[in-house]
Amino acid sequence: MNNSKTWSGRFNEPVSELVKKYTGSIDFDKRLAKWDIQGSLAHAKMLQQAGVLSESDLTAICQGMAEIIAEIEGGEMPWSLDLEDVHMNIERRLTEKIGDAGKRLHTGRSRNDQVATDIRLWLRDEITTIQQLIRDLQAALLDLAEQNADVVMPGFTHLQVAQPVSFGHHMLAYVEMLGRDYERMADCRKRVNRMPLGAAALAGTTYPICRETTAKLLDFEQICQNSLDAVSDRDFAIEFTAAASLVMVHLSRLSEELILWMSPRFGFIDIADRFCTGSSIMPQKKNPDVPELVRGKSGRVIGHLTGLIMLMKSQPLAYNKDNQEDKEPLFDTVDTLIDTLRIYADMMRGVTVKPDNMRAAVMQGFATATDLADYLVKKGMPFRDSHEVVALAVRHADMQGVDLSELSLEVLQGFSALIAEDVYSVLTPEGSLQARNHLGGTAPEQVCLQVQRWRNLLA
Amino acid sequence: MNNSKTWSGRFNEPVSELVKKYTGSIDFDKRLAKWDIQGSLAHAKMLQQAGVLSESDLTAICQGMAEIIAEIEGGEMPWSLDLEDVHMNIERRLTEKIGDAGKRLHTGRSRNDQVATDIRLWLRDEITTIQQLIRDLQAALLDLAEQNADVVMPGFTHLQVAQPVSFGHHMLAYVEMLGRDYERMADCRKRVNRMPLGAAALAGTTYPICRETTAKLLDFEQICQNSLDAVSDRDFAIEFTAAASLVMVHLSRLSEELILWMSPRFGFIDIADRFCTGSSIMPQKKNPDVPELVRGKSGRVIGHLTGLIMLMKSQPLAYNKDNQEDKEPLFDTVDTLIDTLRIYADMMRGVTVKPDNMRAAVMQGFATATDLADYLVKKGMPFRDSHEVVALAVRHADMQGVDLSELSLEVLQGFSALIAEDVYSVLTPEGSLQARNHLGGTAPEQVCLQVQRWRNLLA
Amino acid sequence: MNNSKTWSGRFNEPVSELVKKYTGSIDFDKRLAKWDIQGSLAHAKMLQQAGVLSESDLTAICQGMAEIIAEIEGGEMPWSLDLEDVHMNIERRLTEKIGDAGKRLHTGRSRNDQVATDIRLWLRDEITTIQQLIRDLQAALLDLAEQNADVVMPGFTHLQVAQPVSFGHHMLAYVEMLGRDYERMADCRKRVNRMPLGAAALAGTTYPICRETTAKLLDFEQICQNSLDAVSDRDFAIEFTAAASLVMVHLSRLSEELILWMSPRFGFIDIADRFCTGSSIMPQKKNPDVPELVRGKSGRVIGHLTGLIMLMKSQPLAYNKDNQEDKEPLFDTVDTLIDTLRIYADMMRGVTVKPDNMRAAVMQGFATATDLADYLVKKGMPFRDSHEVVALAVRHADMQGVDLSELSLEVLQGFSALIAEDVYSVLTPEGSLQARNHLGGTAPEQVCLQVQRWRNLLA
Amino acid sequence: MNNSKTWSGRFNEPVSELVKKYTGSIDFDKRLAKWDIQGSLAHAKMLQQAGVLSESDLTAICQGMAEIIAEIEGGEMPWSLDLEDVHMNIERRLTEKIGDAGKRLHTGRSRNDQVATDIRLWLRDEITTIQQLIRDLQAALLDLAEQNADVVMPGFTHLQVAQPVSFGHHMLAYVEMLGRDYERMADCRKRVNRMPLGAAALAGTTYPICRETTAKLLDFEQICQNSLDAVSDRDFAIEFTAAASLVMVHLSRLSEELILWMSPRFGFIDIADRFCTGSSIMPQKKNPDVPELVRGKSGRVIGHLTGLIMLMKSQPLAYNKDNQEDKEPLFDTVDTLIDTLRIYADMMRGVTVKPDNMRAAVMQGFATATDLADYLVKKGMPFRDSHEVVALAVRHADMQGVDLSELSLEVLQGFSALIAEDVYSVLTPEGSLQARNHLGGTAPEQVCLQVQRWRNLLA
Repeated sequence: MNNSKTWSGRFNEPVSELVKKYTGSIDFDKRLAKWDIQGSLAHAKMLQQAGVLSESDLTAICQGMAEIIAEIEGGEMPWSLDLEDVHMNIERRLTEKIGDAGKRLHTGRSRNDQVATDIRLWLRDEITTIQQLIRDLQAALLDLAEQNADVVMPGFTHLQVAQPVSFGHHMLAYVEMLGRDYERMADCRKRVNRMPLGAAALAGTTYPICRETTAKLLDFEQICQNSLDAVSDRDFAIEFTAAASLVMVHLSRLSEELILWMSPRFGFIDIADRFCTGSSIMPQKKNPDVPELVRGKSGRVIGHLTGLIMLMKSQPLAYNKDNQEDKEPLFDTVDTLIDTLRIYADMMRGVTVKPDNMRAAVMQGFATATDLADYLVKKGMPFRDSHEVVALAVRHADMQGVDLSELSLEVLQGFSALIAEDVYSVLTPEGSLQARNHLGGTAPEQVCLQVQRWRNLLA
Repeated sequence: MNNSKTWSGRFNEPVSELVKKYTGSIDFDKRLAKWDIQGSLAHAKMLQQAGVLSESDLTAICQGMAEIIAEIEGGEMPWSLDLEDVHMNIERRLTEKIGDAGKRLHTGRSRNDQVATDIRLWLRDEITTIQQLIRDLQAALLDLAEQNADVVMPGFTHLQVAQPVSFGHHMLAYVEMLGRDYERMADCRKRVNRMPLGAAALAGTTYPICRETTAKLLDFEQICQNSLDAVSDRDFAIEFTAAASLVMVHLSRLSEELILWMSPRFGFIDIADRFCTGSSIMPQKKNPDVPELVRGKSGRVIGHLTGLIMLMKSQPLAYNKDNQEDKEPLFDTVDTLIDTLRIYADMMRGVTVKPDNMRAAVMQGFATATDLADYLVKKGMPFRDSHEVVALAVRHADMQGVDLSELSLEVLQGFSALIAEDVYSVLTPEGSLQARNHLGGTAPEQVCLQVQRWRNLLA
Repeated sequence: MNNSKTWSGRFNEPVSELVKKYTGSIDFDKRLAKWDIQGSLAHAKMLQQAGVLSESDLTAICQGMAEIIAEIEGGEMPWSLDLEDVHMNIERRLTEKIGDAGKRLHTGRSRNDQVATDIRLWLRDEITTIQQLIRDLQAALLDLAEQNADVVMPGFTHLQVAQPVSFGHHMLAYVEMLGRDYERMADCRKRVNRMPLGAAALAGTTYPICRETTAKLLDFEQICQNSLDAVSDRDFAIEFTAAASLVMVHLSRLSEELILWMSPRFGFIDIADRFCTGSSIMPQKKNPDVPELVRGKSGRVIGHLTGLIMLMKSQPLAYNKDNQEDKEPLFDTVDTLIDTLRIYADMMRGVTVKPDNMRAAVMQGFATATDLADYLVKKGMPFRDSHEVVALAVRHADMQGVDLSELSLEVLQGFSALIAEDVYSVLTPEGSLQARNHLGGTAPEQVCLQVQRWRNLLA
Repeated sequence: MNNSKTWSGRFNEPVSELVKKYTGSIDFDKRLAKWDIQGSLAHAKMLQQAGVLSESDLTAICQGMAEIIAEIEGGEMPWSLDLEDVHMNIERRLTEKIGDAGKRLHTGRSRNDQVATDIRLWLRDEITTIQQLIRDLQAALLDLAEQNADVVMPGFTHLQVAQPVSFGHHMLAYVEMLGRDYERMADCRKRVNRMPLGAAALAGTTYPICRETTAKLLDFEQICQNSLDAVSDRDFAIEFTAAASLVMVHLSRLSEELILWMSPRFGFIDIADRFCTGSSIMPQKKNPDVPELVRGKSGRVIGHLTGLIMLMKSQPLAYNKDNQEDKEPLFDTVDTLIDTLRIYADMMRGVTVKPDNMRAAVMQGFATATDLADYLVKKGMPFRDSHEVVALAVRHADMQGVDLSELSLEVLQGFSALIAEDVYSVLTPEGSLQARNHLGGTAPEQVCLQVQRWRNLLA
């Protein structure tokens, strides 16, 4: 049977080869086969309960599908572009195996609701995987945070040294971001996990279907309540891709930092050799390829988001062929996200921290200037005045090429008579760190509390 | 006091005028004034409870802020570009009014956590407004759906006539989409409604602040648990803009349909004159300007989404000046969304339905062909065969220029002997509609059930 | 030889399998093989002229490369992921064949300038193909325009009937758009056609290379004048994708119109069966799949544009691994554009015009109202008054359900005494068309002139 | 006259206030006033030559428009939202001043072709300004390049030290990028500089207009050859925004580098205080606000590009109200680009280079390893072997914490007996620089040649 057999009664000429290739989707949608069959089996069971299919038809269908699954897994399924898509390929194969019962499977549904069901079943599973991988990456970051709760590094704003922070605290910032990503995936999954099956082509069907039964068999949380919406909705794909884009934005930020930190001028960390590559002409090179590629791949995922929104903009109801273009960007987004999360968790476990370089960097940017200002305030000076006093002290130290803590008491007192010997404890990075000991602050004690909080959440 | 007073101790020359204009934000961020003051008052109360501010300072601050609010509302607040942003303008004004107590307000916070708090407080309120407006638009659509539950129109796929649907059912598809938009806004609001205040510049503060107190005063659901993340996170802006983009995509789709339906070849609806404009040279024109502009404005919002993601991509922690660019797209997104939802609810109440034209269109595209195929299946013919039989009947009717229901029984029986007199009840649009009477189907009874379900949800 | 041989002296552990897969590009960049070899041969010839390579080495390289080309074409080239990319695969294969001479080929270049050269050589050829395909599509549209110069259809603004236009004139609008696309491709090609080779890793090389010689051998118009820019520039990819996006926007617009016009309510055209598909459940359906898919694929290409810009944003010089992500979106853009242009030219030749339906539509929207206003102006009435008079006449005719030309002279004169018997020639669509007979106007005579102008340009 | 007078004959109710605000454009399009009048004057002159307007009408129009220009410049023009847009406001004002002659100005044109003409006239002028500003920025970079031709800095790939480069050479990379931007603006300007006027509403006009005359008066290079295309084309806006996006991408890259280089760990440059701001709480801070904001604003412009493409996607011909949404993103793109280029040229003149820190950084990353490999090749070792030898030497030096040039001859000879005393001249950054002395290479001599080449081009 060629394509013309499916819908050719009205047609005077066959589809051209170029058109077949241009409009066919079997090259990429065959990856949905497993979920297509899962949906078909539930549909068949429901039809049988509803009296539309006989018991023996159902048995034949289950048997035939089991064989097809085996063929697919064994790489023996004969996919054909003439049959357009994964649905027709499987239906045809089934009919070859079990005859007329195969032809009866499509009763009361259409490819429009079928494909929407397949994608949702598939994406639901992928989101579950992604959520687990987010947790894995968080766990890797938590280990790093705990091991480095006491390690002082310069906290930057505007890439200028701002105040000392704990490296563990810095890692926890990403744990928070990923925590929101996890939440967004969970929220999105609720809207993915709704069943369009039963919408048929666009208006429902004349057969006595029971959608509640099918939904229960497929473990859907809700049923799409409007048939026109059910076949034309691709919100869930856009929402997922937006959530995926945010994950990638977060990882692009961490990548940017890893690349910076591994640059010799920073020298804050090293990344294990197995995540780096060298150069074919520069013998000394060890390049942080993985974070660079992750940074680059963020563009890829965000491009898919733009493409998917563009796809849906201004489409009239109900199903239009445009929608077929949802699959490739969605597949690629899922693949990119899964690979990236997996490699990232692995890589973070291969990061070596260099505390000495971090501490040296803290000493380079007057990181404790705010502490000195706060010191003066606590001695009674108004903050705006203390700010100005410290600014002048910084200017002096800068010209001398030394840190504030390296100025003599005499020199410091030249800026304010309120300064006494006890100032030096305030001017150390460690003192600065300890002093920010409140919920969300950078003090090592807080870092440990946060690690514990997250360990409990992830348990 | 000019700008130099705020941070000039280290600086040898003042900021140039061009730079002041390029980097200043007061032109647009003054719209945050109300929320900035709300946040400052809670911060002051917490500081007083923590013993950092005196009772009298707090009283002075509350009094001064009340005056400033009155000045802003009266248009008498003297905004100055020299003071960069809304925060410095208000602080300066406060200090002019109450002296040193005003200078003490900024203790234990920074503009980095202050601005993040302001935007979240503001956006939280705007989301609440947006959710209400979504409900209003849904209510308008429900009225239309209920009034037209029995009105038959052609359901399209590929803009070809597919099967008859109820116009009410069609309207309900948009109620569903907006329902998901409402959910997404609610989910997003959870993540907006978290308090960054207390993160100070990036690392927390050395003052004995109590963030739980401030959060409670400001009615925040959660507290940002990591100071670095708190000042650099703009996820919530991106997530909101993504959710807003989906609303606009939905309205662009409805707009596309309204424009089509009002085109004379369709003639399915009319839009009240007050939502249309004419032409300065073509006297006959009545143009659906509002839906066209909504369709156009969807691009605007989606552009903001792209811009915001681009903004955050690869930014190292913590705060960078880039982030100042979050405000204008966010403000414009909120304004566009609110205006659009408001005008849309209004406009949908001004839509006149033309059932005769809709019914005429149903008769033009063999909309009941599937019903005929199902009829044959129920008489015992396998579906694939019945599909082919009907295709041939359609081809015949098409050449005759008539609908299937206009073929004589004799002619119909020429295609299949299974066809009997009872076929004609199946071939009417009304019969087709009634036959799809299951959850989510287009039968008028289902439409009424859905209207009821939504009325309950919205109550 | 495994990967470690290329740059492993510094490395303590091999790259992990996951990393190899994540960072490798051979799966997609092997399509550059032909151009990689083209570039290598020119490089080798230049090196020999410069005295860096011996005559016999050059001979061996040419011979070895000829064999490799044959292997690739015959599908016998053993591609290996261990060798990362197309460059290392080919170099390794060459060395297996000809020994040390193969190892000397890479002298004075780096993969950084090599890959930039490969992409430019490849894209230059693809642009030439695209330009030809644009011309083909223009030719198909010109035929259609010429055949339908006299066919009257409603010109729409706001999808409301505005004034009669010639269908040929409408087709010519797309010829103009494609004309600009052709120009943009030509402008872009100038900037693609510049040679980065010789930039080596980023700074140039210590070998006595002659870049002018290589450029001449490879037929490059210009040489990239700065080595840092040469290896890091991807402007040309973005500019090309932007130009491709505009082509797709144009075709999305034409697609939208074809879909509308083929909808039964319009019925302006038919598209040959070989470009359409049917439905597996609705026997009457004939869907314009190709234009729908083109409309959808415009999102895909625009998504790639967004992704590529995102990729380059904020990248420090010179080469970063991010850049590897330029290839897949670029390849897919080229493939999509070529397939789409090819199928579109084909499809436009399969469009059947239905002049009767078009003319009927003209009569439905008071398309000649402006002509009546102009008629009154020419009889002496100020335009703003005539506009109002005609608006009232339109309102009257609308209520009667007739066209302006169907009102009796008596009725028309009730609106203005200036109206005489000669008004009816102005009220016909054909009269309206003929009256717009100036450069760029819709008169059939102008259409024919434009067809002739374009035929000359395309000759 | 209120709005209803313009097109109200058919309308039963006035436009609602909300709709007026939603659809009106006068708030933003009044900035086109100058170009609107320029176009009107040329149109009037043409009409007079064509015999459509009388000599005295033309005189009155010219006189009235002169007064309106004076009013606009003096801030006395009474703009009204009731009159929708800039065109109606000016026409109404003109008619108030000169009576019926003002009403006759609109003969033979429509707002559709009028607004398209206005935007093109305006954008043409802005592009000229932008091109000049690009040249200014290039000039600033050339000065910096010339002054620093001999300054050695580490050339990075993957942000790892790769090879020494001249800081002047690095600046020249941006001169090249901006050179392409200039070209793209010029190419785009050709397509902007085409005249839509004469297309009228969509189909041309029945008056005997001479478009060649108007085009000549307005100095347009070409005339839009198809009226439907003329009123609906917004390619030029998209192409311009794409070109602007590339400028912003380039400046985002330079910004990223300036931010990095000014970070204390790099310390390669300082930016004059007038381009920086401090912190209200951290007294030591001096932040590179301008480059950060430029980096952020790149997202803004790219967002506009996405929005504009989205706007045009799938729009049917001819004019739709959606198009009104082209103006705000276009205006903002032009403003952002002009401000950014202006401030950037200024800022680059305020950059202080710190050669000592740059040179220190060169010594930190084995930047001359490739030179050592090349040295061995020239002594007869195959490159792949020399690469491995140097890699081992690098590993040794790395463990010792010294540069290659700091290893004793004895130690170096332990890696290869081919190494002799002359190796040290190769291992200096200056030697490495000098050795890359070919077109496009980093040798100071080449930098000076390039500066001269550009100076000639810019002269």
